[in-house]
Amino acid sequence: MQTPEGRVETPEERLAKLGHTIPALPPAVANYVGAVKAGDLLFVSGHGPFQDGQPFITGKLGRDLDVEQGKEAARLVMLNMLATLKEELSELDRVEQVVKLLVLVNSDPDFTEQHVVANGASDLLVEIFGPERGKHARSAVGMATLPLGIAVEIEGVFSVR
Amino acid sequence: MQTPEGRVETPEERLAKLGHTIPALPPAVANYVGAVKAGDLLFVSGHGPFQDGQPFITGKLGRDLDVEQGKEAARLVMLNMLATLKEELSELDRVEQVVKLLVLVNSDPDFTEQHVVANGASDLLVEIFGPERGKHARSAVGMATLPLGIAVEIEGVFSVR
Amino acid sequence: MQTPEGRVETPEERLAKLGHTIPALPPAVANYVGAVKAGDLLFVSGHGPFQDGQPFITGKLGRDLDVEQGKEAARLVMLNMLATLKEELSELDRVEQVVKLLVLVNSDPDFTEQHVVANGASDLLVEIFGPERGKHARSAVGMATLPLGIAVEIEGVFSVR
Repeated sequence: MQTPEGRVETPEERLAKLGHTIPALPPAVANYVGAVKAGDLLFVSGHGPFQDGQPFITGKLGRDLDVEQGKEAARLVMLNMLATLKEELSELDRVEQVVKLLVLVNSDPDFTEQHVVANGASDLLVEIFGPERGKHARSAVGMATLPLGIAVEIEGVFSVR
Repeated sequence: MQTPEGRVETPEERLAKLGHTIPALPPAVANYVGAVKAGDLLFVSGHGPFQDGQPFITGKLGRDLDVEQGKEAARLVMLNMLATLKEELSELDRVEQVVKLLVLVNSDPDFTEQHVVANGASDLLVEIFGPERGKHARSAVGMATLPLGIAVEIEGVFSVR
Repeated sequence: MQTPEGRVETPEERLAKLGHTIPALPPAVANYVGAVKAGDLLFVSGHGPFQDGQPFITGKLGRDLDVEQGKEAARLVMLNMLATLKEELSELDRVEQVVKLLVLVNSDPDFTEQHVVANGASDLLVEIFGPERGKHARSAVGMATLPLGIAVEIEGVFSVR
């Protein structure tokens, strides 16, 4: 993960190489914000799989969507979260450590593969930040429903410099 | 938001002006407490819409309650949380920043307006603490069910001085 | 809680006296880890009621399991979490304070005793760490479903020295 000039790639460069684009910042629609910094910790709001400011992947896992579609949703949620991090920090390299994710999967009551769905987000973080900074504590759980019917919502805690 | 003498109003004074009363402290019923301080962060337990020590707004959004009733429940939960903050900090002015809320809405599987319900709590915080201190990171999600059938449960993180 | 020699018992000694064994470390199966330290806070991943590396208590409260079985599941989850803490800290005595638990109970939509189920974990913490260090902020909530069908999942925040 070095550039031709021998520099370590930035997270932004890795994202581009993987073919990912950071989406437009999710719209701020109420009396809350995308992230709040407290000391060295950045607490990030629940994000959804939005594209062009609209919910893009909706439905329940195990009823409307299969595991692969769920992973895709989790990946898109994480790209939305990276947009918020980029807005907040200017450079993603200011992330010192991905600390924790809470991965909330819109689920039929008999769907039990939330941990596999969550890998869509976790794997992307490790690709972007590398295993040292990118591996994180995580919970993955099955929700009765989510706002606007989105398939996955993720909130996170990051330590930043 | 200044008093006749030109002082900035305290959060308690704003609460009173809005006609809100901080309810009696929710009962401590087991081996846990309302809040724990760790460094400058106060981690606050999940609170419910209690009044006089009893669950006051129960039922599922989208089945038993509509969005307005849900917002009312979220507001009452936040008043209960303010009671815990007041007990913990003596003065609500010791809240430096509302950092994060996790808003857990008891939901029918097809209800998708959890973010609107959550505004009942978020709006109150901004009214009480002002936009700078009061705006926070937030997740709003749909639960299969909640303890004692309460309509909304909220946990929070606050930075305090 | 003193030894015959007048020393204060270690958390490990209290566990043994209560007849509990710390289970084998839950398997690391993806791009995440059991816990991440940020400053003095240890953020711990969602754990399940595993034994010998397998989900041991599965099913929904209010449909497949009763409250006592749920408490037993919560206790086993906490033993798994203690295994992760022990791996991370070497000595459980390095836990300065149990800060917060989020107790996620796999629930039938009409089950409303999540707080009683959660006591299985909270009571064990107070038995092991004593009331000063062991009492914590807590949320207990009802999930539509959980990974692998486990009955209870718990994530936690601890302050450590």
